[in-house]
Amino acid sequence: MSAPGPISTDVQPERVFDWLDEEAEKRAGAGLVRRLRARTAEPGDLDLAGNDYLGLAKDKRVAGAAAAASLRWGAGSTGSRLVTGSTELHADLERELARFCGTEAALVFSSGFAANLGAVTALSGSECAIVTDKYIHASLIEGCRLSRADVAAVAHRDPAAFTHALSTRRKQRALVVTDSVFSVDGDLAPLPELWHACRAQGAALLVDDAHGFGVLGDGGRGAVHEAGLSGSPDVVTTITLSKALGAQGGAVLGPRRVIRHLVDTARSFIFDTALAPGSVAAALAALTALRAEPGLPAQVLAAATGLGARLREAGFTTSTPEAAVVSVHAPSPDEAMSWAARCAEHGVRVGCFRPPSVPDGISRLRLTARADLTESDVDTAVRVITETAPDRAR
Amino acid sequence: MSAPGPISTDVQPERVFDWLDEEAEKRAGAGLVRRLRARTAEPGDLDLAGNDYLGLAKDKRVAGAAAAASLRWGAGSTGSRLVTGSTELHADLERELARFCGTEAALVFSSGFAANLGAVTALSGSECAIVTDKYIHASLIEGCRLSRADVAAVAHRDPAAFTHALSTRRKQRALVVTDSVFSVDGDLAPLPELWHACRAQGAALLVDDAHGFGVLGDGGRGAVHEAGLSGSPDVVTTITLSKALGAQGGAVLGPRRVIRHLVDTARSFIFDTALAPGSVAAALAALTALRAEPGLPAQVLAAATGLGARLREAGFTTSTPEAAVVSVHAPSPDEAMSWAARCAEHGVRVGCFRPPSVPDGISRLRLTARADLTESDVDTAVRVITETAPDRAR
Repeated sequence: MSAPGPISTDVQPERVFDWLDEEAEKRAGAGLVRRLRARTAEPGDLDLAGNDYLGLAKDKRVAGAAAAASLRWGAGSTGSRLVTGSTELHADLERELARFCGTEAALVFSSGFAANLGAVTALSGSECAIVTDKYIHASLIEGCRLSRADVAAVAHRDPAAFTHALSTRRKQRALVVTDSVFSVDGDLAPLPELWHACRAQGAALLVDDAHGFGVLGDGGRGAVHEAGLSGSPDVVTTITLSKALGAQGGAVLGPRRVIRHLVDTARSFIFDTALAPGSVAAALAALTALRAEPGLPAQVLAAATGLGARLREAGFTTSTPEAAVVSVHAPSPDEAMSWAARCAEHGVRVGCFRPPSVPDGISRLRLTARADLTESDVDTAVRVITETAPDRAR
Repeated sequence: MSAPGPISTDVQPERVFDWLDEEAEKRAGAGLVRRLRARTAEPGDLDLAGNDYLGLAKDKRVAGAAAAASLRWGAGSTGSRLVTGSTELHADLERELARFCGTEAALVFSSGFAANLGAVTALSGSECAIVTDKYIHASLIEGCRLSRADVAAVAHRDPAAFTHALSTRRKQRALVVTDSVFSVDGDLAPLPELWHACRAQGAALLVDDAHGFGVLGDGGRGAVHEAGLSGSPDVVTTITLSKALGAQGGAVLGPRRVIRHLVDTARSFIFDTALAPGSVAAALAALTALRAEPGLPAQVLAAATGLGARLREAGFTTSTPEAAVVSVHAPSPDEAMSWAARCAEHGVRVGCFRPPSVPDGISRLRLTARADLTESDVDTAVRVITETAPDRAR
């Protein structure tokens, strides 16, 4: 749409950003203003908001590895991966991630966001059709927008919808893109069925396992591994190093030729500074810890299931957790925010998801379970969430 | 373009990525294959490739701060900035960056790439015209592609071309986007002239100061500060924390309402895990070190200028460095790569930039100066580069 009238260039410098204030007023009216709250090192409250599912971020093995690597290798990686940013630590982590998940190769990015951008764009292009679940993570959506591919977003967790879109595509190549565990409700994609749809339609499958890796599958190998798809020649997985592994960064796992292709073409890989040595070492130490304690992931799932059941008993509308995430419906964005604030006042930190972070427009409290959540923690959480609930929440 | 014939869904799973091999062969034929080389903690060679311009990545104050923060705060930030990822360290760094550069506010992202994506998309939109220098960094280009704005890329460093594009735009709002120091050749954008063009045309100015911050301006306050534009109500700056500051991450600096708008709307901010505490603390310590040693930046510029002059005397076609970067033309991608490899064999690490990392298609050696480069280092570099040069390089 062009501007309705002639363009006015007579704008005072102080006024070029006036439109931001107008946008801010609209958001305020809709209850969508966000505020950054800086936490302390020892907040002391019950954390049901973070993604440190295995409690490894502050684990001495993990934090200690970050500290030691920072001192030995430096605070930063000094350059992009293809110039001076690749260290032996990066190579070690890539080898270990691939070995753990049973893929040919892996590639570390500076974030899960960057890994998703890189994987989607490099594996599609203008001669490809992308079919996505309509609830995929924002970083995958940005990848699709950058891809120049034909993009179809289909009904949530509906293999038939994928098959229909794939069978009516106008490009020879096709890529199916989905989260394994959807980040808002913690529900699972039907990976085996999607994979069958891909195989029947000659498509590749790209799965963002950010919330599955470290929580689901044998010893935390993730949802793709659990579905028996790790190592398939037509499957690519992205993960984060910043959730179950308690560090920072992301990675793509898959066939060797996919990883080589990303090294040569993924712009979010080539044109980004490499992940800091401390974060790489922390992820590597967390992976070692996970191997040493393969029972940790099951504890997360048990805690999430228990929390969800108790909240449903208390009369709330919750998601049925299939990984660490449980969400609780709130009546409105404003009420979600004030509910979360009241929880915080009572020492329970919960996430508050509002548009545009919720795909269906329903605002929610978003709770995350951790491996070390006790029975008493769950009691406290349920009590505080119940006592602080807005009237219309049940 | 649609596929020429009917779509075949009869593709074996082992073959869905066959097209990647075809692409790889094409790249191999054009000399464009990239290889990751993992460096050791103490490579022992002369580094003229990294972006650790002030030598701070391994500085004890900086690496020590990263280590201490990892132990105290944990290896990772545990969540996105709006959930659990904002720590007091993030708030401290944002306040200190804004204070140092003289802007109202600052916002830390997990990378410079993410900061650029966020700033470009959040400050434009479908009702905006973006005018960019055609040589801007890839992350800014990705931001433009995601922006839904009308985008015009104009001649390199040409204020008249910006004015023409601005005056013929079809949208009321306009955003000019440029690097301050262009990353391939180290040449400077004409910031004062661009700003005048913006003011005359009612446009805002967004400058990526990744290679200027810490190197140019009073005490390293950057190219935007040097041009007298820091703190302007119509100017926004992005920087990295991973180059002169030796850490990891990026930031946006500008008017408070711009920063608030990014918090509420920038998808690469909202949907990304917050920067790890160790990296935040390292950047903060590096900023303190830079304040304590305001003469460091001038040393970088002097080293780069000397290096460029010596290489031109030796008969090479080089850029005229206006910051830390000096580039040397190579006859072809293949010869650039083998030249850089021979330098490495002789103990001098140089960057090798080939398409698509060079805007004009000319492959180059890319050298970066550091504050601690000695006269003898420069002698060594010039000797090795000269002795290993391909015939057609002079």
